[in-house]
Amino acid sequence: MKTQLPIALSNKHIHLSQKDLDILFGEGYQLTKFKDLSQPGQFACEEKVDIVGPKKAIKGVRILGPVRGDTQFEISIADAFTLGVPSVVRNSGDIENTPGAKLVGPKGEVELEKGLIVAARHIHMHTTDGEDYGVADKDLVSVKVNGPRGLVFNNVLVRVHPTYALEMHVDVEEGNAAGIKNGDLVELIK
Amino acid sequence: MKTQLPIALSNKHIHLSQKDLDILFGEGYQLTKFKDLSQPGQFACEEKVDIVGPKKAIKGVRILGPVRGDTQFEISIADAFTLGVPSVVRNSGDIENTPGAKLVGPKGEVELEKGLIVAARHIHMHTTDGEDYGVADKDLVSVKVNGPRGLVFNNVLVRVHPTYALEMHVDVEEGNAAGIKNGDLVELIK
Repeated sequence: MKTQLPIALSNKHIHLSQKDLDILFGEGYQLTKFKDLSQPGQFACEEKVDIVGPKKAIKGVRILGPVRGDTQFEISIADAFTLGVPSVVRNSGDIENTPGAKLVGPKGEVELEKGLIVAARHIHMHTTDGEDYGVADKDLVSVKVNGPRGLVFNNVLVRVHPTYALEMHVDVEEGNAAGIKNGDLVELIK
Repeated sequence: MKTQLPIALSNKHIHLSQKDLDILFGEGYQLTKFKDLSQPGQFACEEKVDIVGPKKAIKGVRILGPVRGDTQFEISIADAFTLGVPSVVRNSGDIENTPGAKLVGPKGEVELEKGLIVAARHIHMHTTDGEDYGVADKDLVSVKVNGPRGLVFNNVLVRVHPTYALEMHVDVEEGNAAGIKNGDLVELIK
C-alpha cells in the first residue's frame, strides 16, 4: 500500500460564475490562462479582482478557471481577519450560510451574499490512487509531515475522482505551520 | 497526571537591547508598558518600529519589554516572505547565523546583521507544572488540538522555569492552521 504523496499550498483565490464574470469584466468575457494547475483542466488566470470586506479590502486576488456554477472565494483565516468577516472552514462547494463580500472588477462590482470560505484541507486522488492508498472518496484520514515543524494533520478529506491528480491541498497558513513547500512529500496515515 | 493546558498565538514582535533602543528612540529611553503579557514580568509596549527587509518593509511592529541582552525579531514564515529574507525556525535566544534587517525608529535606524527568527513552538511551565505534567526542561513533546482543523503538533519544546506561567506558544500561522484562538485548551501527549 502506498503512503507518500505530494502536497501543495493554495494561496487565496476566487472561482467565478459566468454571470459574475460578465458583470466584473464585461458581457461574454472569457478568462485568459496564466498557467495550468496540477488538477487537470484547472488553470490560474491573468485576471484579478479586489475583495472588499466590511473592515478592509484585499486587492488583486487571482481568479482560477474555468468558470463554475457558483462564485466562491477561498481565503485564509488571516485574510478573513483582514476583511473583517468570520472565518468559516468548509469543503469546496459547500457555501450555504457563509459570509459574503463585494467583488470589484474593471467593468463592474458584485455584492455577493455568500461564498467566502476557508477551504478545508483535502487530498485529490485519481480513482486508481484510491486503490493504491486503500482509501475511498469522502474518507477522513490523517497526514504526517516531518521536519522541525513536523505535525500530523487530522480530519483530512479524501476526494477520489477520475479527473483528479494525486495531491494534498492545504492553505498557506497550514503549509507554513508545517514548514513545507510545494511538492514536498507527506505521509498518509489512517 | 495533568494533560490540558492553554495556548496563545504570538503575533510578530521585537525584543530590543538597550543599545538598540537608545539608537531607535533616543539615549536612555525607557519603554512604556501597553499591557502585561501572560509570562510574569513580560509586557507589550506602546512603542513600535519598522522592519525593513531587502524586498519590502513591515511597518509598526510592536516591541515587547523589558529590554534583553540581544535584539531579536520574531516573525512568521509569511512575514519572512514579505521582507524577502529566508525563514529560519529557532528557539528564542538562538540567533547565530540568522538573517538580519534594518530597524527604523523615530530617532534613528539600526542595521542588524542577525536576529530575525521564526520562533519554534514551545510550552512555558512553572517548576511545579513540570511535575504535574511529568515533563522536564528541554523535553520535546507533542500537543493535540481538537476541532475541524484538528492536528497534532510534534517537536514542541518544553521550557520549565520558576518564573514561567503555564502556556503553549505558537505563531499566528500555526494557530490559524489549527483553528484555535487565545486561551483554548490543548492536550499534551508524549
